Amino acid sequence: MQIDILSLFPEMFDGPMNSSMIGKAQENGILNIDVTDFRDYTTNKQHHVDDTPYGGGAGMLLQAQPIFDALDAVQEKHPEPGKVILLDPAGRQFSQKVAEELAQEKHLTFICGHYEGYDERIRTRVTDEISLGDYVLTGGELATMVIIDATVRLLPNVLGNNESAVGDSFSTGLLEYPQYTRPADFRGMKVPEVLTSGNHQKIAEWRRKESLRRTFERRPDLLEDFPLTDQDRKWLREFKTQK
Amino acid sequence: MQIDILSLFPEMFDGPMNSSMIGKAQENGILNIDVTDFRDYTTNKQHHVDDTPYGGGAGMLLQAQPIFDALDAVQEKHPEPGKVILLDPAGRQFSQKVAEELAQEKHLTFICGHYEGYDERIRTRVTDEISLGDYVLTGGELATMVIIDATVRLLPNVLGNNESAVGDSFSTGLLEYPQYTRPADFRGMKVPEVLTSGNHQKIAEWRRKESLRRTFERRPDLLEDFPLTDQDRKWLREFKTQK
Repeated sequence: MQIDILSLFPEMFDGPMNSSMIGKAQENGILNIDVTDFRDYTTNKQHHVDDTPYGGGAGMLLQAQPIFDALDAVQEKHPEPGKVILLDPAGRQFSQKVAEELAQEKHLTFICGHYEGYDERIRTRVTDEISLGDYVLTGGELATMVIIDATVRLLPNVLGNNESAVGDSFSTGLLEYPQYTRPADFRGMKVPEVLTSGNHQKIAEWRRKESLRRTFERRPDLLEDFPLTDQDRKWLREFKTQK
Repeated sequence: MQIDILSLFPEMFDGPMNSSMIGKAQENGILNIDVTDFRDYTTNKQHHVDDTPYGGGAGMLLQAQPIFDALDAVQEKHPEPGKVILLDPAGRQFSQKVAEELAQEKHLTFICGHYEGYDERIRTRVTDEISLGDYVLTGGELATMVIIDATVRLLPNVLGNNESAVGDSFSTGLLEYPQYTRPADFRGMKVPEVLTSGNHQKIAEWRRKESLRRTFERRPDLLEDFPLTDQDRKWLREFKTQK
């Protein structure tokens, strides 16, 4: 997968995009990330990329010209443009489903804004507007990295055997059950007995029940579309009476 | 504000936490960020921080001991522990409201997980479990940086005069209206005439209407609790007939 990022702060990507899983995916040739400073494409003498809004008001807006020209250069290098993504609070909410869609693409380009906003005409070059959630960030850089992380880990051969995307929260539709590792007694807090019993059926049952309990307590909305078994329904009745 | 981060990948924070607004807030003494590699606190000879889950299953879990000991060290330095935040898909969904709450604190500590999950006993040291959204990330680092960015920009004297938190999407309850900056004609795309008219009342009206239109088209859920004026209701009827 080829990922291009248009940003005024290319140095922000150095650490996060070269560490851990994303760094390894790049070393292994599964992924290539290029960051373009679109300030390099400005045609005005002062190298400004922003200007005041027509109609007045506080703040500065990113101008269309540097971003159009930087996009032209990226798309000349990669003639299949794939998806061009603008990070914007008015965009579609990012979710695991969106990550799965993006993981099907060969080329993703992210436009990271900063300051108060963008010149509206930039949206004409964009295929997808995405929002991380209902909160305001200073720029699109961190949101871009979050989307890249969630997407790249779904690519074939990215996660090792020690990390699997299969048992993740959201991929099963339930939140994860409580997990424990050594020591069995830590500062007086003990691992639930069933987990050290060696009885695999009982362990599987306990995990299903606790997964269901946590989802019921914290995210009951996830249960609305979840295919419950008869046993699940019994447990849910039990949780409701305990409440 | 003092922020402590417990992470196995401290180098991920170098670029993002020293650039732009967050970097400036640190230079100006408004914010201090310390990143602790909790691998330094492991008491086993191999410096492992993870182990296999009790009861079997794929993946590795973060052990309680290194995180407990790293937290002890942080809290010895800063006796008012403030909020201790675990990034977890089962946590409360992050939102502008959560950012506003966190911005009231003097000390925030973030625990960044990695691998399949945490030993459950780690949650006993945590005051808040937060999720960025319904998607799975490789680790808590990027989520932590997003939360820090959204929170720190709400602290007094962090945003300059050119950037204001007041007109942001979500702070008004509506999505932002389209904005334009120079040139008035870019590659044949022109700025709406009203914005260059100099008529401030008409500009304000146009902006309110377009803000409402964008919210109606993309995020009608935001209108449910929004205090609409009579004029807003007229516009909404107009949008509905145009649909």
